[in-house]
Amino acid sequence: MGKIESNLVNTPHFNPLNPQEFRKQAHEMVDFIADYYQNIESYPVLSQVQPGYLRANLPQNAPSLPESLETILEDVKNQIIPGMTHWLSPNFFAFFPSTVSTAGFLGEMLCTCFNSVGFNWIASPAATELEMLVIDWLADMLKLPKSFMFQGTGGGVIQNTTSEAILVTLIAARDKALDVDGSGNLNKLVVYASDQTHSTFAKACKMVGISPRNIRLIPTTIDAGFSLSPIQLKAAVEADMADGLVPLYLCVTLGTTSTTAVDPIELLAGVAKEHGMWVHVDAAYAGSACICPEFRHHLNGVELVDSLSLSPHKWLLSGLDCCCLNKQSESDSVVDFKDWQVGTGRRFKSLRLWLIFRTYGVVNLQDHIRSDVGMAKIFEDFVRSDPRFEIVVPREFGLVCFRLNPDETFGSDYTELLNRKLLDWVNSTGRVYMTHTKVGGIYILRFAVGATLTGDNHVVAAWKLIKEGADALLKTV
Amino acid sequence: MGKIESNLVNTPHFNPLNPQEFRKQAHEMVDFIADYYQNIESYPVLSQVQPGYLRANLPQNAPSLPESLETILEDVKNQIIPGMTHWLSPNFFAFFPSTVSTAGFLGEMLCTCFNSVGFNWIASPAATELEMLVIDWLADMLKLPKSFMFQGTGGGVIQNTTSEAILVTLIAARDKALDVDGSGNLNKLVVYASDQTHSTFAKACKMVGISPRNIRLIPTTIDAGFSLSPIQLKAAVEADMADGLVPLYLCVTLGTTSTTAVDPIELLAGVAKEHGMWVHVDAAYAGSACICPEFRHHLNGVELVDSLSLSPHKWLLSGLDCCCLNKQSESDSVVDFKDWQVGTGRRFKSLRLWLIFRTYGVVNLQDHIRSDVGMAKIFEDFVRSDPRFEIVVPREFGLVCFRLNPDETFGSDYTELLNRKLLDWVNSTGRVYMTHTKVGGIYILRFAVGATLTGDNHVVAAWKLIKEGADALLKTV
Repeated sequence: MGKIESNLVNTPHFNPLNPQEFRKQAHEMVDFIADYYQNIESYPVLSQVQPGYLRANLPQNAPSLPESLETILEDVKNQIIPGMTHWLSPNFFAFFPSTVSTAGFLGEMLCTCFNSVGFNWIASPAATELEMLVIDWLADMLKLPKSFMFQGTGGGVIQNTTSEAILVTLIAARDKALDVDGSGNLNKLVVYASDQTHSTFAKACKMVGISPRNIRLIPTTIDAGFSLSPIQLKAAVEADMADGLVPLYLCVTLGTTSTTAVDPIELLAGVAKEHGMWVHVDAAYAGSACICPEFRHHLNGVELVDSLSLSPHKWLLSGLDCCCLNKQSESDSVVDFKDWQVGTGRRFKSLRLWLIFRTYGVVNLQDHIRSDVGMAKIFEDFVRSDPRFEIVVPREFGLVCFRLNPDETFGSDYTELLNRKLLDWVNSTGRVYMTHTKVGGIYILRFAVGATLTGDNHVVAAWKLIKEGADALLKTV
Repeated sequence: MGKIESNLVNTPHFNPLNPQEFRKQAHEMVDFIADYYQNIESYPVLSQVQPGYLRANLPQNAPSLPESLETILEDVKNQIIPGMTHWLSPNFFAFFPSTVSTAGFLGEMLCTCFNSVGFNWIASPAATELEMLVIDWLADMLKLPKSFMFQGTGGGVIQNTTSEAILVTLIAARDKALDVDGSGNLNKLVVYASDQTHSTFAKACKMVGISPRNIRLIPTTIDAGFSLSPIQLKAAVEADMADGLVPLYLCVTLGTTSTTAVDPIELLAGVAKEHGMWVHVDAAYAGSACICPEFRHHLNGVELVDSLSLSPHKWLLSGLDCCCLNKQSESDSVVDFKDWQVGTGRRFKSLRLWLIFRTYGVVNLQDHIRSDVGMAKIFEDFVRSDPRFEIVVPREFGLVCFRLNPDETFGSDYTELLNRKLLDWVNSTGRVYMTHTKVGGIYILRFAVGATLTGDNHVVAAWKLIKEGADALLKTV
């Protein structure tokens, strides 16, 4: 070996992970980020840029030679931040909040630090085992039956998003229903959900080859609070069976995207199980509330279902992407998580949840849910106190569905126009960002409370702004 | 509003994102991580724990009350790190490396900081637009035709992993081939790849409903360097068509997982395009090398294919998960990336690549590829210099496929046993981690160079250790 070895000159290679350099630059980045959080209210919540703004301001090609961190951070300040819709702003009341926390951030730093690829047990034993543990911790916080836990006969996995959770459970259900050789009648399989179910359900069904003609999105009504009716489900299933079709999968939603409607798990699962269907509960947003005893009743009947998914990035402070999927099934002593998901490689995601659960404790996480619900209640009371507004559907969690409806005599088109104008005006101020939905033909304004930094004062200010908009609008009418 | 407002007491809510607290704790975490990188060589590369070790050492339930960061970091040190297989260790030569960098880490911190959910343009304009830009930057670095760029007629997206890239392109191909109402003959669609293709291909095919009987994994041979033969592909396609089947999709691999074999894109695409198939190039690992002119020829013919995926987490320092998918197709001025992937929500992933490309520049990234290939060459020369060893397949990139083969007279089973023993011994020392593969009936040791911190000295030390193992093994024979 002598000759070859003597040819090796100990030249310093390009080292993109020099620990001293890492330490220095990562500290700089921490300060940059802490400053961003401190100043976050100074930015318009909803970005005011036009499509294509960024390409016009940045080079069209990667540089040949290195640039300094300072130069890059200047661009983050001047080019990126103005183009952000600031999901972490305390004045963000759009969609559902995407909650974060210091503990979640630190967990993510650790995950990035190790950069382990836990596709099977030996590739990162701690990554697999910690995930099994925190999945059980969460199941325990939700008072799920042992049959959903590794400690019992089930288990779970952290997926990226609800879409992936629905996709993998659909595939499991499909492959159970079809012949082993895959030659079964895929075209005969039918899936069910309400018309309030997130569009990712139909997307996942199409991905796995369910015929679009066999996706039943059963209509809901405002009188039933937009929840799926077991009677209607039963009628739909029986009609399909009479037509020679095979009921495959029911997606029950706990807290729909539009209005946080809750489908009755127990009754629906009862119908579905009579016909051997796979029942999945999508509890992406509202499932987290069930760590509080006063909300746990929404999970009644969960022992009847096959799988349940819940996204801690929505309401348990984890940051994206983090969707926990629990299922009732046998599990082995050594779990290879690559067989539970779309991808092969996977990150050490459980660190985030582990740090969150430990740093805050269950008591504070319950407080956090209650505090958000309390702020939504404050906003609801504001709306109820102003006769020009109305609450459209009863509030159950952190979302208030309301609208301006000063005078119905001009018809629903006029009411919708007024509300559209109000929403546009509020969002154009950059001081608040809200979104809308349209269900049962009604255009509704959504006020979703729960961004991590939101306090009572932000809710009060948002209501003042909305009232200001309404005053101006109604004056010009 | 007066009464309600006066009821609001300005009590401090539980605030899990207090900027001062964030700043303090994130600085602590930076130092913890920098220390980990500095000490990484002191840990066994391959974890030595037994299944179930962690549950035995940690509480079975989440704590009710908060715990301090210090307590948690103690557990990371004492419970998590011993259970890690250290992918970032400079002595990690297993699988393919999962490369990282300070710039990638900082980009990930920024992504976590914003926690924006870029499912459509308005939800985070900067996130969508920066992704479009860096996807084009990478396409330019690879000298892809304009038809793969947003600047041309195509575009791209950052997926989580290759699995997802294959899944979404398969679905696009399937839905193009089937009737609009989904009633077409899914059972007649056939897909093609070599028997060296990553198992995620067959997994993705099953996910989208391709019959397992219609997945053709065409055999390769050692004489052809385990690359897919266009002649064999043509024969397989013609046989299927004679049987009334419909060729759908060809997966070409640039750098197979076992031996980094390169399928000839131009010739294979020529065959596939005669029959209207979708052609996808999986360049997960070796695609990154094509940013160097001397490797670019492996992409010759890429203008004939429909899509190409490449994972910067494998060889472009990005950390997990980051897989760039480029495709030839029309694109609109406003891109809603949720329609390009499995999930709806998505993180601001492009920040990582943007920071990497700018912090290092193309010149250093090319140096980094060449340095890894150079170290693999050094190891290859060591192997060639010792007559007890042999190189099993020619080395092209950073992977050396070799084995101990002192005397063939005892037969192949004996040779395999010797190599298994050598690998077990080397890995049991904790000083190096390598893996094996078995192709063409041959048990091969894989030495994959490319962990970010690896230098010449680690390659030299690894070879010494392997020789030491071989000495001991052959002495006892």
